[in-house]
Amino acid sequence: MISKTDGTAALLQRVSAEGQKLPLEERRNFLKHGLLLAGGVITGGALSANARAAAGNLPPNVPAWTRSLGPGVLTEPYGKPSRFEKHIVRRNVPWLTADRIASISFTPLAELDGIITPSSLVFERYHAGIPDIDPEQHRLMIHGLVDRPIILTVDDLRRFPGTSMIRFLECPANGGMEWRGAQMDALQFTHGMLSCCEWSGVLLSTLLQEVGIRKDAAWILAEGADGSHMSRSVPLAKAMDDALIVYAQNGEPLRPEQGYPIRLINPGWEGNTCVKWLRRLEVGDQPWYHREETSKYTDLLADGRARKFSYEQECNSVVTYPCPEKPLTEKGRYEVRGLAWSGKGKIKRVDVSFDGGVNWRPARLKGLVLPKALTRFGLEWDWDGGPAMIQSRAVDETGYVQPTYTQLREARGTNSIYHKNAIHTWRLHENGKVTNVQIR
Amino acid sequence: MISKTDGTAALLQRVSAEGQKLPLEERRNFLKHGLLLAGGVITGGALSANARAAAGNLPPNVPAWTRSLGPGVLTEPYGKPSRFEKHIVRRNVPWLTADRIASISFTPLAELDGIITPSSLVFERYHAGIPDIDPEQHRLMIHGLVDRPIILTVDDLRRFPGTSMIRFLECPANGGMEWRGAQMDALQFTHGMLSCCEWSGVLLSTLLQEVGIRKDAAWILAEGADGSHMSRSVPLAKAMDDALIVYAQNGEPLRPEQGYPIRLINPGWEGNTCVKWLRRLEVGDQPWYHREETSKYTDLLADGRARKFSYEQECNSVVTYPCPEKPLTEKGRYEVRGLAWSGKGKIKRVDVSFDGGVNWRPARLKGLVLPKALTRFGLEWDWDGGPAMIQSRAVDETGYVQPTYTQLREARGTNSIYHKNAIHTWRLHENGKVTNVQIR
Repeated sequence: MISKTDGTAALLQRVSAEGQKLPLEERRNFLKHGLLLAGGVITGGALSANARAAAGNLPPNVPAWTRSLGPGVLTEPYGKPSRFEKHIVRRNVPWLTADRIASISFTPLAELDGIITPSSLVFERYHAGIPDIDPEQHRLMIHGLVDRPIILTVDDLRRFPGTSMIRFLECPANGGMEWRGAQMDALQFTHGMLSCCEWSGVLLSTLLQEVGIRKDAAWILAEGADGSHMSRSVPLAKAMDDALIVYAQNGEPLRPEQGYPIRLINPGWEGNTCVKWLRRLEVGDQPWYHREETSKYTDLLADGRARKFSYEQECNSVVTYPCPEKPLTEKGRYEVRGLAWSGKGKIKRVDVSFDGGVNWRPARLKGLVLPKALTRFGLEWDWDGGPAMIQSRAVDETGYVQPTYTQLREARGTNSIYHKNAIHTWRLHENGKVTNVQIR
Repeated sequence: MISKTDGTAALLQRVSAEGQKLPLEERRNFLKHGLLLAGGVITGGALSANARAAAGNLPPNVPAWTRSLGPGVLTEPYGKPSRFEKHIVRRNVPWLTADRIASISFTPLAELDGIITPSSLVFERYHAGIPDIDPEQHRLMIHGLVDRPIILTVDDLRRFPGTSMIRFLECPANGGMEWRGAQMDALQFTHGMLSCCEWSGVLLSTLLQEVGIRKDAAWILAEGADGSHMSRSVPLAKAMDDALIVYAQNGEPLRPEQGYPIRLINPGWEGNTCVKWLRRLEVGDQPWYHREETSKYTDLLADGRARKFSYEQECNSVVTYPCPEKPLTEKGRYEVRGLAWSGKGKIKRVDVSFDGGVNWRPARLKGLVLPKALTRFGLEWDWDGGPAMIQSRAVDETGYVQPTYTQLREARGTNSIYHKNAIHTWRLHENGKVTNVQIR
């Protein structure tokens, strides 16, 4: 599961004992030195400043916190991040929605590592704000074409055999601003309606076995307890496959903004179908064609028809480093990093281009590769200081290849808001800064 | 990866439309009904109260939050739990240590699901309190028997190729109070120096390749930047295997109490070796025999010798439901749940006993089964209302079987504080309450 790095994984930047950057010429030596290492040749001499500091086993520095006592246990019975990381928060795009009640905030993807999104940073999407639900008062009703309708408390739900799964959750409008060319210069806004958590709960199939589905059952309506009564129609096949009624997220109870006390998770499907604050599951023989699957969450095609019930989040990827929030600082070797995901299963392969899609190099998949989960990739790259057009292109286990903008628009036109999964381009400038451009 | 439940997974408690519990007699019917379902026989009539409520597609209830708007996005740019879950916090045992500066707090395991421990609830262990480290000022020095000593900033460290892994972290003193018979009636205190996170960082082997290890190198000293200068000797083999220099935990930067900005993680090994606030790695040819590996973190055996460098956390398990914090409420079917883990690799099997170890039944492993990670197990059980002695016994992929107290004490005597992994017993009383007992 763990990709070990090879000997060429050399660090390109070193600092003196005082933490000052060395002159460019010396840093170039480090680069050369690092490359020589790959061939097994060890050179000395270039590290004199560090070597001097280390010669007498001197510690690297002795700041105040190394000479004092800090606060003890339970200073924060429920912990929080370092005060030096206060910039890592969800953000919104003020002009995107008329108010904050029915709006969106974005996950700061540029600041995250691994595949788990901390619950505090999972993007928000509300249609009527966050209901303040007392779990003792909350109920889930399952009715319709069932033999034994039922009303459950949260404690009832927890009595059923449970399971857990790490799965991504993405709003189908993720990247929606890119369809019309409103290129935001921030990874947080181009791809930040995306997260990945460990979800724990009861498989919906378990509950449906409990109530007994009638022969003509084919669809399920899921309805939320918030003021919008948000509801979506879900085919029975998905409900019997891997749909999960969730009460916990990353180990602890579901967060209020994620549907506390219970929500539906349809792994790999539009976040909108994963109804939060779930209060009602109705079994029927056809879809309900409610608001959020007719006037919204459908894709207006070029010929005027609407693509509906487009549930699966197609294979997608994005480079997270470098990106607008994380520019490069100097020439040299870097690990270019990114995220890939597919609603159809596991990621099989990711390629990276530095010239806008002319040439591609295979990236390394890192850590766990799970179905319908975020997957990390990385690729070592020597930046020569010149401009570049950095792209990633993911392929999932079904063989589906992430499309170009041209391919996506040929299939869908330009009216869409949802399901933008075209290959994304970061333009790296000579000063190391990164901006967002579209290459067809 | 997902264990689907079979048709016998029947809910045993239902509530009326008003949320009132039905009379016992009716609930007995539900049980019988649930059991009948397993044989494919569908019976009706017992659900009249629910059926009535559902007949006209009435919603289960219409509380205030279903008829109003809530606060919108970015009410909490960095989210937090529901106000109804404020009891889920770390706690300490006041008499256990002289002060809170060099002390321990415990993870509330009874309240958690899945295998990820949220960072805010990971147990704490300090020797000099929490240092308030400015990451810009922090340095990591690697020196000793190396060709090219080096001093790194956190940004330098992030330049190296990185990886992520989900691994448990456990204080070797977990369960230490049980050795001498101080049975705490709380899972939080018997097993709560335990957590499991996704750790992201750079493999230590990558850094050692960078600095070049000399031929006589055999050990590494890891030292922390806090006021205690906590340090441990780690064999080179572990450093070259899976030891990780960590900068992120569950996706976001490492928390202050977990070693911000960087720490060492030795997967599967004593938490104490996973030095926090890591500032120095010295390569040597023998261990240093520092304080925390001589006077502490060794095991005094019956014959007066001390077991030292006992790094691996042996295979262990515990039932998390029921437990003292989570009693049973009535006769009927439950999913008995628990956690298993091993510092040697994956969990292969868990058995559960309800009669203090006379008879055993195999439990189901649930969700991801990862090496050196928490693993969930579950087993459906019909509680007849009588007393029970509930135990779990884990086996790891090496074939190691979790020992009884008798076996553990035969090997180690009774002077130990560390490495208690004996089979644990919860005594279930007729009133559903659970207490902690020791069965030899």
